[in-house]
Amino acid sequence: MARAITLIESSRSDHRQAANQLLDGLLSHEPKVALRIGISGTPGVGKSTFIESLGLDLIRRGLRVAVLAVDPSSVRTGGSILGDKTRMTLLSRSPEAFIRPTASKGILGGIADRTGEVIRLVEAAGYDVVLVETVGVGQSEVEVASVTDLFMLLVAPAGGDDLQGIKRGVMELVDAVVVNKADGDLAALANHTASDYLHALSFLRQANEGIAVPVRTCSALHHKGVGDVWDTVSQLWRQLDERGIVTIKRSDQAAASLDRELRSILLRRFAEDGDRGIQRQEIESKVRALNLSPSSGAAILSGLLSPNA
Amino acid sequence: MARAITLIESSRSDHRQAANQLLDGLLSHEPKVALRIGISGTPGVGKSTFIESLGLDLIRRGLRVAVLAVDPSSVRTGGSILGDKTRMTLLSRSPEAFIRPTASKGILGGIADRTGEVIRLVEAAGYDVVLVETVGVGQSEVEVASVTDLFMLLVAPAGGDDLQGIKRGVMELVDAVVVNKADGDLAALANHTASDYLHALSFLRQANEGIAVPVRTCSALHHKGVGDVWDTVSQLWRQLDERGIVTIKRSDQAAASLDRELRSILLRRFAEDGDRGIQRQEIESKVRALNLSPSSGAAILSGLLSPNA
Repeated sequence: MARAITLIESSRSDHRQAANQLLDGLLSHEPKVALRIGISGTPGVGKSTFIESLGLDLIRRGLRVAVLAVDPSSVRTGGSILGDKTRMTLLSRSPEAFIRPTASKGILGGIADRTGEVIRLVEAAGYDVVLVETVGVGQSEVEVASVTDLFMLLVAPAGGDDLQGIKRGVMELVDAVVVNKADGDLAALANHTASDYLHALSFLRQANEGIAVPVRTCSALHHKGVGDVWDTVSQLWRQLDERGIVTIKRSDQAAASLDRELRSILLRRFAEDGDRGIQRQEIESKVRALNLSPSSGAAILSGLLSPNA
Repeated sequence: MARAITLIESSRSDHRQAANQLLDGLLSHEPKVALRIGISGTPGVGKSTFIESLGLDLIRRGLRVAVLAVDPSSVRTGGSILGDKTRMTLLSRSPEAFIRPTASKGILGGIADRTGEVIRLVEAAGYDVVLVETVGVGQSEVEVASVTDLFMLLVAPAGGDDLQGIKRGVMELVDAVVVNKADGDLAALANHTASDYLHALSFLRQANEGIAVPVRTCSALHHKGVGDVWDTVSQLWRQLDERGIVTIKRSDQAAASLDRELRSILLRRFAEDGDRGIQRQEIESKVRALNLSPSSGAAILSGLLSPNA
């Protein structure tokens, strides 16, 4: 499976073709439906500890777990497999778990589209739960939410003012909030933080119409409350699935991915052609300097693609 | 000027060419900088009354005011000029005011791009303040914010629970909040509502780093406090302008518009070609039904554009 993922993430066009055949082959079978859960949180909230604790709990329940990491930083550094496996020692040793970063941007489409393909792959391989982890830097949450069924925000106990640290728009993506580190001296503060989030969420639209965003506390380090978190999240998933929302969401996500990939291919054709790439930059500079209107710029650039347009 | 706007909004390609020439001609002059202010609010908050009161106040200060309305509904009905002028009787009679809906979607680009062009046109025509009004339906606020310097949310006095009615993501676009109808029996509730918004905003990131979002109350009906609202908003604009943020924002907006227009042209080429349009629909259906992977779908569609790709 690791090889299939490498194929999906490859930027070579023959690899891309093979990957497309593979993915279409998977779709021709009646798909197994795994719970696709996004998990985000700023560094230091204990994401790895939480995912390891949750993963081990799920395996004890007889479920197979895949953990994919979308790490915006590793797009630059080329992945951090070792890092992930080191972070989740026990989970990575289990034959029922699969841990893999999916950071490669690939030649076509963005992180979300490649991650979406890897999710379909591990789902077809029989994993029951796919956890997609990302660090909180705004755009990556949006991407993870665009390929998962539910999006969970992991936070640490903190004063109310710290809620401001949550990036724009992220709170509105959130299907569930988990306050980790609810142990020892922080237990009381964790409860307080949970109330703060409940309060803050009351000012926002619910991600799921008519269903309040659940807020739970747990201590991943002491394996306390993690099972309850899962019961809450999996129950929410079933509620949405019964209403047909999971199916609709996945269809919409696939259509959005088609759009992104198509736009990406079309725009990349400019970028890959040297002269056009330069002209593109020149035109963008003029537009930015307000010396050329955006619509004229677009007309010039699109005229380049097809001179008879 | 009304004719120039009609040209900009026309879907005929010769009109589009002439419009592009016109817009590029405007750019070649040292541009006059008008304050571009977006104003949004759900129906019933008194937007027309507020804009009329504000417009008349600005004219008394010796400023010329243009009011553009982005009305998502009038995209379908073909505009509502009469409606706008009827709503703002006094303002529409003033020679220092220009009122116009800019709803036409045009053949290329979206509402935002055409509205952006009309804004540059009225700015070049010497208007000092451009007010871009929209009703609150989510996407239109995002579009209005993408072509203005500041985005103002107009709300009515209401209980705290009503804050939930504000659409996803809109609160994060807001540079200033105005509680209208702060008169008579509603005066006390208006103050309470202002506090509620201040509180809710404290949970969100500030639209402008380091500057708290101002919240003001006014009674547009009794012309009370509207001048103070303007002082607050224009002072905020100057603060941002001194930091160079207005210039950066406009450059970024122009570059984003270039991207949107280019993507729109490229994607429209498919849609306008009958067979491809049908194939596009077929492929999207398959992708939605999860029978074809998005990347394969995109590869097929992009292959159609250029068979040797």
